[in-house]
Amino acid sequence: MKKLALGLSAIAFAVAGAAIAQDAPFGQQIKARQGLMEINALSIGTLASMAKGETPYDAAAAQSAADAIVGVVNLDLPMLWPAGSDNTANPATNALPAIWAEGSDIGAKVEAWSTAATAMQAAAGKDLASLQGAMDALGGSCGSCHKAFRAAAN
Amino acid sequence: MKKLALGLSAIAFAVAGAAIAQDAPFGQQIKARQGLMEINALSIGTLASMAKGETPYDAAAAQSAADAIVGVVNLDLPMLWPAGSDNTANPATNALPAIWAEGSDIGAKVEAWSTAATAMQAAAGKDLASLQGAMDALGGSCGSCHKAFRAAAN
Repeated sequence: MKKLALGLSAIAFAVAGAAIAQDAPFGQQIKARQGLMEINALSIGTLASMAKGETPYDAAAAQSAADAIVGVVNLDLPMLWPAGSDNTANPATNALPAIWAEGSDIGAKVEAWSTAATAMQAAAGKDLASLQGAMDALGGSCGSCHKAFRAAAN
Repeated sequence: MKKLALGLSAIAFAVAGAAIAQDAPFGQQIKARQGLMEINALSIGTLASMAKGETPYDAAAAQSAADAIVGVVNLDLPMLWPAGSDNTANPATNALPAIWAEGSDIGAKVEAWSTAATAMQAAAGKDLASLQGAMDALGGSCGSCHKAFRAAAN
């Protein structure tokens, strides 16, 4: 048990920084998922910039950005969106209660995102035309979910 | 091009929320990686709580938590820690310049984290003793990196 106790001290040390100032309900989950959305924004930004010709097509960078989006969608998302973690529980989030409401199609929307991200992963590193061809579905899947389930930013 | 332009509008819409108030240098990357650390904190919290006997051992929950940590370490981490994104460039981060300094062992430390997370992934769903056996190395890998490369929280 001594070895375990030492290990747990190290963990307490590791976690302490993250736990500070996360006292509002679901603070950790909200900060975590906002971080994931930043990863998506960075990745989509890279892909969209190439699609629009603002930056030269770079197969490796495009592949890496697409891989990052697939990495995010494959994380344990239900852990980060527990029931009730909406903008009435904590104003730090723009997540609407509709996400968890009876008849919500959040599952189908996440599935559409996953499908579009996987298609982009197969396309992004091939050539610019393939990347552009996968862009609509991916951007549409982001927008469709945000439109339905995200409050206007404060 | 019209179809593409429509897609890109949807993307602009999707990204806008994330881009707001991220004007300080590396704001997006910093928010993204802090989000990942929250995922780690949630996951490690679940595992540590079982290891200490504070919550009953639950194989599925333990497996899910371990999977989440592996999911995070397998993301495109260099994208989120670009050179110079330290606490002298933006006070929102506690990342020390030492991460990117000549002779930094950040690569070895991330590798140790990855190895420990993969070992936990193999152990967590088996039984409590296996989970406990993988805890020291995992907690140690968090603490070792934070101790070397993270400034004390403000």
